[in-house]
Amino acid sequence: MIKRQIRILGIDDGPFKFDEEKVIIVGVVMRANGYLEGVLRREIEVDGRDSTERIMDMIENTRHRNQIKVIMLDGIALGGFNVVDIDGIYRKSGIPVITITREEPDFESILKTLKKKFPDWEDRWKLIKDNTIYEIKTPHNPIYISCKGISPGEAKEIIKISTIRGAIPEPIRVAHMIASGIVRGESYGKA
Amino acid sequence: MIKRQIRILGIDDGPFKFDEEKVIIVGVVMRANGYLEGVLRREIEVDGRDSTERIMDMIENTRHRNQIKVIMLDGIALGGFNVVDIDGIYRKSGIPVITITREEPDFESILKTLKKKFPDWEDRWKLIKDNTIYEIKTPHNPIYISCKGISPGEAKEIIKISTIRGAIPEPIRVAHMIASGIVRGESYGKA
Repeated sequence: MIKRQIRILGIDDGPFKFDEEKVIIVGVVMRANGYLEGVLRREIEVDGRDSTERIMDMIENTRHRNQIKVIMLDGIALGGFNVVDIDGIYRKSGIPVITITREEPDFESILKTLKKKFPDWEDRWKLIKDNTIYEIKTPHNPIYISCKGISPGEAKEIIKISTIRGAIPEPIRVAHMIASGIVRGESYGKA
Repeated sequence: MIKRQIRILGIDDGPFKFDEEKVIIVGVVMRANGYLEGVLRREIEVDGRDSTERIMDMIENTRHRNQIKVIMLDGIALGGFNVVDIDGIYRKSGIPVITITREEPDFESILKTLKKKFPDWEDRWKLIKDNTIYEIKTPHNPIYISCKGISPGEAKEIIKISTIRGAIPEPIRVAHMIASGIVRGESYGKA
């Protein structure tokens, strides 16, 4: 039984164009019941390799550090193909990580793109390929998750208690809304 | 009886230093029950005269335009002494405006500062002096409000239904958290 009072850190990136060098990522510290307790911001390189380091910096330097019980990411890559080492984040921080997407990841297509775009495609692919994807049914469309440091069953329960409307948990929904609103002037779309 | 489903636009400015030219203002579109529906962002000049115009631009250009039933501002001035014409906003938009502060405004001190800093102090003072300040008791410390287009009684009721914890209504609390978190990397303090 997971308490509705636990704190979740939800992270999403802002919108960007591929000719831009950097993009913001926004972290929201939120109780599972939706009560917002903190907003964090960092920058990462578009298609770069620094997302893991910048997320670790976000986690280690917030005053909420010791309250965060789980991290939710909008997918395993932020800022294009700046792939996050979710196993590394879990090992270094001790905090379980869940990635969440609306679409089932198409690994074949991802691998093809990585090979075409990046000389270091193997390093990026290594961070992606070991993550088992689980489909989670919701009252709306299903969502697709992967997780480290937590069982899929526990992850599912945390997602359930932190979802207010629709299919996406509140920490990810709100992080998306803030990141897109700050960059564009008005938030839009769905996480 | 005001519905807990009405939409409120809460606006606060980000932190800034007085040698900076511009500062962001963040607007959050939120149901009175605390459910976030949109995040808006504009920039205003520190100690400038453009806050009213930029807020009007924020209101008139959001897709939430027709849903917003009341506007809440963290005080009557944003970005230092960039005083907001709340009567003008009400008259132009038709949406009532409430200003909220934790401290009772010290008009004598404000007038003194305006006279010292600004050749156009009379124009700024005119926007401030006509606003009656009402003290609102809360289960915590009292807050101080002024309002246009709405009675103090109705304003009080809207504040009450949109306050989740503490003394400050959720739209202002969240706008403050976003603006300070985005500018500084981590949100801090209270609206």
